[in-house]
Amino acid sequence: MNRQDAGMLANVFRPTTVIDATRLGEQLGARILLASETFQHTGSFKFRAAYSVAARVPNALIIGASSGNFGQGLAYACKLLNKRCIVVMPATSDPAKVAAVEAYGGKVDMIDVRQTSRAERVAQLVRAHPEAYLASAYDDPLVIEGNATLGRELAALSLPVDCFLAPVGGGGLTSGLITGLRAEKCSTPVIGVEPAIANDAARSLREGKLVRNDAEPQTLADGVRTVSLGEHNWKILREGLSRIVEVAEALIPEAVRLLFNAANVKAEPTGALPIAGLLAEPEAFRGKSVCCVISGGNVDPALFARILNTQ
Amino acid sequence: MNRQDAGMLANVFRPTTVIDATRLGEQLGARILLASETFQHTGSFKFRAAYSVAARVPNALIIGASSGNFGQGLAYACKLLNKRCIVVMPATSDPAKVAAVEAYGGKVDMIDVRQTSRAERVAQLVRAHPEAYLASAYDDPLVIEGNATLGRELAALSLPVDCFLAPVGGGGLTSGLITGLRAEKCSTPVIGVEPAIANDAARSLREGKLVRNDAEPQTLADGVRTVSLGEHNWKILREGLSRIVEVAEALIPEAVRLLFNAANVKAEPTGALPIAGLLAEPEAFRGKSVCCVISGGNVDPALFARILNTQ
Repeated sequence: MNRQDAGMLANVFRPTTVIDATRLGEQLGARILLASETFQHTGSFKFRAAYSVAARVPNALIIGASSGNFGQGLAYACKLLNKRCIVVMPATSDPAKVAAVEAYGGKVDMIDVRQTSRAERVAQLVRAHPEAYLASAYDDPLVIEGNATLGRELAALSLPVDCFLAPVGGGGLTSGLITGLRAEKCSTPVIGVEPAIANDAARSLREGKLVRNDAEPQTLADGVRTVSLGEHNWKILREGLSRIVEVAEALIPEAVRLLFNAANVKAEPTGALPIAGLLAEPEAFRGKSVCCVISGGNVDPALFARILNTQ
Repeated sequence: MNRQDAGMLANVFRPTTVIDATRLGEQLGARILLASETFQHTGSFKFRAAYSVAARVPNALIIGASSGNFGQGLAYACKLLNKRCIVVMPATSDPAKVAAVEAYGGKVDMIDVRQTSRAERVAQLVRAHPEAYLASAYDDPLVIEGNATLGRELAALSLPVDCFLAPVGGGGLTSGLITGLRAEKCSTPVIGVEPAIANDAARSLREGKLVRNDAEPQTLADGVRTVSLGEHNWKILREGLSRIVEVAEALIPEAVRLLFNAANVKAEPTGALPIAGLLAEPEAFRGKSVCCVISGGNVDPALFARILNTQ
């Protein structure tokens, strides 16, 4: 994408919110800056991806599969662009995210992922709607370019940090970050954070080839319940990603609580993964300056209350 | 305060975080911008007040009374300035705020307000420490000047709004806002929001004289449990405040939930008062553009979980 196109997108997106999380940093022994996408349109970075796709394909109907945030972003982007969309969502999706997709005018197509994979259902819908554009939530150069606007923004801020940490699911965010940062000549390492029970990306990096989970892993971080990285993302991540930190499930709610109590940030479990990464490897980050990308803030309030009440 | 002094303070303070709360605004029928002080040092605007005092008095020991946020701000300001402080807090204070004052190195002096008023206990401490400066959390020109930095910031942003809404307790925030906005030639009205069970400020405006509550009202908004406006604040507010919206207690947790669910903002009950004000008078604000000052985000997680779970 050229800078003019990037500038066009940047005018639509809200700048990321940079928060100097002093108290959280003191607790974790690092200097922590948060790049919070929780105040982005539709509450997560996924709006960048979705709008980038919806604005740049000619089709009036867009079909996508999403555990929620891409669906919300796509629904709102289509609303802004006077287009329509159908979003395939697992029945286990956060109810708040399902309701939000519908509130933005998107049509939700709910599936039981134990019986039908997202890919199968999407294929059925594409056959039924041959005029539609099939949008991947991550495996699409237009998605990567949308997310690259965040990398460009962060590069322009010249943050004094040793590394960026960001969640890894399908790899759309990290591949976009790397693309945007490098396009603006910022060489700061990007480290991925992935739930240990959904560690296909970490295994892929170790084995040097794209490996898949057998099924969608039921991690609390519902934004990274993907079976594998996308092909386009993998091409960027295999060379561009510094490494991946794998985190135990118990660290994810702990990270949500820390962001809430020590930084006044409402993050969804997936958004808290970078903090879980700091908890998983305290020695690796002690005394370092890190920028944690908080990818989104949309979470069911009943689930959030349970997380707050569990210590 | 001259602009040079204001600039010195502004370098210490974090700029307020302006959030365009589109979805919240759609739900409430208004265009809503949030000026969130939840990411200010110590998590509330009170740091502006406390640092302004601690930096500009010669005393090495500062005594203050606070339900929590001024105490946190004072403790952290004194830490930064190598000073000491004693903070008198009611036993009913949010435990998270008490713990935070202590974490910043402040000494907490806990009282039962049914037996000893804050004023009485403060007077005892001042007799015991004649070298100390007695800092009011609101009734002090240095406090008002500290809070005025927020008004100056907001004026400089030239937000396209019809009014500002902010919580009223002792009147430190609203008198500071008015002072700062007017110093920068911004004439946008400032509207106070006060719990109906703690409506001494609204009664004062109606009666044209400063009136007091008999005791500290036990509103959920613990930051405004003051018996009256301060004298210095009253002088500014009686002429400068446009009016006061009084809100029923039930609207306060509802406002906390709305900020959480529709704007991804973690606010403490006091910080959510401006949203409660919009709920209290929907017709008055329908179609208007408003800037709500979210004064702080520090809240006990157990209390917050209860608020989320109650509909």
